[in-house]
Amino acid sequence: MPELTSSKVRTPIVLVNFKTYIEGTGKNALRLAEDCEKASSETGICVGVAPQFVDIVPIVNAVSVPVFSQHIDPVSAGSFTGHILPESVAQTGAVGTLVNHSERRLKLAEIDAIISRAKENKLIQVVCTNNAAVSAAAAALKPNMIAIEPPELIGTGIPVSKAKPEVVSGTIELVRRVNRDVVILCGAGITRGEDVAAALKLGTEGVLVASGIVKAKDPYTALMEFAEACREHK
Amino acid sequence: MPELTSSKVRTPIVLVNFKTYIEGTGKNALRLAEDCEKASSETGICVGVAPQFVDIVPIVNAVSVPVFSQHIDPVSAGSFTGHILPESVAQTGAVGTLVNHSERRLKLAEIDAIISRAKENKLIQVVCTNNAAVSAAAAALKPNMIAIEPPELIGTGIPVSKAKPEVVSGTIELVRRVNRDVVILCGAGITRGEDVAAALKLGTEGVLVASGIVKAKDPYTALMEFAEACREHK
Amino acid sequence: MPELTSSKVRTPIVLVNFKTYIEGTGKNALRLAEDCEKASSETGICVGVAPQFVDIVPIVNAVSVPVFSQHIDPVSAGSFTGHILPESVAQTGAVGTLVNHSERRLKLAEIDAIISRAKENKLIQVVCTNNAAVSAAAAALKPNMIAIEPPELIGTGIPVSKAKPEVVSGTIELVRRVNRDVVILCGAGITRGEDVAAALKLGTEGVLVASGIVKAKDPYTALMEFAEACREHK
Amino acid sequence: MPELTSSKVRTPIVLVNFKTYIEGTGKNALRLAEDCEKASSETGICVGVAPQFVDIVPIVNAVSVPVFSQHIDPVSAGSFTGHILPESVAQTGAVGTLVNHSERRLKLAEIDAIISRAKENKLIQVVCTNNAAVSAAAAALKPNMIAIEPPELIGTGIPVSKAKPEVVSGTIELVRRVNRDVVILCGAGITRGEDVAAALKLGTEGVLVASGIVKAKDPYTALMEFAEACREHK
Repeated sequence: MPELTSSKVRTPIVLVNFKTYIEGTGKNALRLAEDCEKASSETGICVGVAPQFVDIVPIVNAVSVPVFSQHIDPVSAGSFTGHILPESVAQTGAVGTLVNHSERRLKLAEIDAIISRAKENKLIQVVCTNNAAVSAAAAALKPNMIAIEPPELIGTGIPVSKAKPEVVSGTIELVRRVNRDVVILCGAGITRGEDVAAALKLGTEGVLVASGIVKAKDPYTALMEFAEACREHK
Repeated sequence: MPELTSSKVRTPIVLVNFKTYIEGTGKNALRLAEDCEKASSETGICVGVAPQFVDIVPIVNAVSVPVFSQHIDPVSAGSFTGHILPESVAQTGAVGTLVNHSERRLKLAEIDAIISRAKENKLIQVVCTNNAAVSAAAAALKPNMIAIEPPELIGTGIPVSKAKPEVVSGTIELVRRVNRDVVILCGAGITRGEDVAAALKLGTEGVLVASGIVKAKDPYTALMEFAEACREHK
Repeated sequence: MPELTSSKVRTPIVLVNFKTYIEGTGKNALRLAEDCEKASSETGICVGVAPQFVDIVPIVNAVSVPVFSQHIDPVSAGSFTGHILPESVAQTGAVGTLVNHSERRLKLAEIDAIISRAKENKLIQVVCTNNAAVSAAAAALKPNMIAIEPPELIGTGIPVSKAKPEVVSGTIELVRRVNRDVVILCGAGITRGEDVAAALKLGTEGVLVASGIVKAKDPYTALMEFAEACREHK
Repeated sequence: MPELTSSKVRTPIVLVNFKTYIEGTGKNALRLAEDCEKASSETGICVGVAPQFVDIVPIVNAVSVPVFSQHIDPVSAGSFTGHILPESVAQTGAVGTLVNHSERRLKLAEIDAIISRAKENKLIQVVCTNNAAVSAAAAALKPNMIAIEPPELIGTGIPVSKAKPEVVSGTIELVRRVNRDVVILCGAGITRGEDVAAALKLGTEGVLVASGIVKAKDPYTALMEFAEACREHK
């Protein structure tokens, strides 16, 4: 793994995307981040959180786990009303950002520019991708991490690591030809510890998860199951 | 004026858009918001602030002036990673949002949907427009406020209220045929108290301003000049 | 009705959107346009066609019915690779264009600019809208025609004119407060002559139709049914 | 070079993008295509043309040189009003398409999908890119051709091949690590035969050119100069 700009981030990692779920908004977001912190400190496994923009500051102030933005824009300081200036995220103490999530797809040239702007601001970049070829393309841009998530499985509870292991292993193979260093995560449908274990066994270094944790009846228990699966794999 | 959902907001109003200026980011944003609060409390004139998303919570917590988002998305709670859920903004204590700023233009159907979602969340909507016809179109969607800003003057220091008074008065005339209640602001190039006075004399109820305050050598003094111009007009 | 820039266009009008249906592509598009011409010449009712861009020239050259583009861009001659220059459409002999179709939604400021660019090129503008408020907004921009199409009914075979007559009549009412001249069409789910008759009875001056004709087993017969309904209403 | 789907296309190639220049619209487009054909037949060098969508059919019908679309959309036959169905382009006899031109930038996942849809329709894909890293990313998606065009030089008359040779050679190096087969073109600022010669000497297999030909006083003479430079290089 190439050196990351935050010592808070280690692999294996469980990265929790709060999306715009109401269970991950405002006070709920804070409570969820505290569950993540608790599971992380009890297991020693890195659990990152990616809350909505307005919730980044209160969460960074309240918990010690690494906080990621869900997106940044490829803009510089100036006249970009309504956009996400990388500096604004970096100044909060957040450590990184998702890029090109399937619900916020970006232009190829934008992804390249965002990776550069993130590096200037020492923000870790997690570029989301939808298949093996696109993952290899993203890897050519030299981000810190890639998260392969087949869109058709997102939110289904059908785990990519068990239902489509060949997508994950095919992605790893194609990405490695282009880039040996990038950290590879997978996501989509991950809801149980065994899904996480399967993902790690395939050669990934962690999972990107959303509804499997955020909409779980008991997020803390689900997080512990995920983190334990990581600990057993190490 | 139709009833607004926040008692903090009154007209005439000076609404300060922090854009993604570095002078309006993070700690700078907080200091600027404090200047706005000071000028407001000394003059009794309403001064609103529209900081970047991540800065909304610390500013709402620190000052009493009304805080606006720079944008919200027409989405509901759910799978919209990287988007601005109206609920997330409303839960911070922010009172409203810019919509369709010239640097974040939106689809017509999105503007309509955002106004509905904002109303559900009791967020005041300030729809930005570029000319008289578009202002009338926006007015037909029944937002709380419209801010006419000819894009060619934004950031120039050439005040719309003095350089193109006919655009402002023409906008007011066309808008009033469609909607008698909407509050009309103007913006672009406003840097001095006399520009604000001219805007109010033309029949607007306030100004939307960015660089004229945010990039002023002394924002507090500039704000006082703006607020005094409002007070004299009342 | 305000004067239109093409004498080929009269109301009531049946305007057939070929979308990107394979039944409306290439040679199929030409055959379909010939069916439209036949139905039009037999009934005296105006039948317009909106084929894909590459099919505009062969269709204009082959038939006498008015041809519309499915979209134009708000650009001027210059460096806009991959965009639809209004002049390029006008030079073919096409008479107008759809604007803001539900499958190609546009920014408010773009719709305004497209209407201006279309007028400069004597292209009739048919602005598509999704509800009454948005229709009133579009009407404020003074296009030649508005076509109200509730997106949830498009392609369903459930006719807006019979299933949601209040949407159509509510649209007409709101639009007329803003603009007395604009021609109002409706669309979505129109598949039978009686749907057309219902639309005209509600006060529209025609229909915008796609699958109801393009994917009909026998488009010519379906067109005749539509045109007869128009003739009976006159 | 991997096998191309049209025998009309050979390297070295001069590919002329007509953009939305008025000199490349309608009858002007046809005349320009005829100049391309004449220069091609006199020199034996492949000259391709990329006219606007509505002009594709008349040009394919009039000349023998290979015709490219300026863009296609990643859609299938169906409900995509205002989009460019790959089938619609393929059925005209056009042989390929530009993808991701700097004036029509696309999402990474769209570029991937467009390449697949183009291959299904036997359309040659020429993916435009802005720098070496993005070129390598595009190459990972296995298109037929890549055209590197630094946006800051487009339309300037400052030739990339002479002013920024390191961008071209750096691109070739990075691309070749990812993909040995893809044809590499360069563009931006190419206006003279010596610019073409320089591009070929750097290892490209042709040029993508627009204003240098389309807005030349005498396009035919300019084309002959370009084609001669290719012939001398062979």
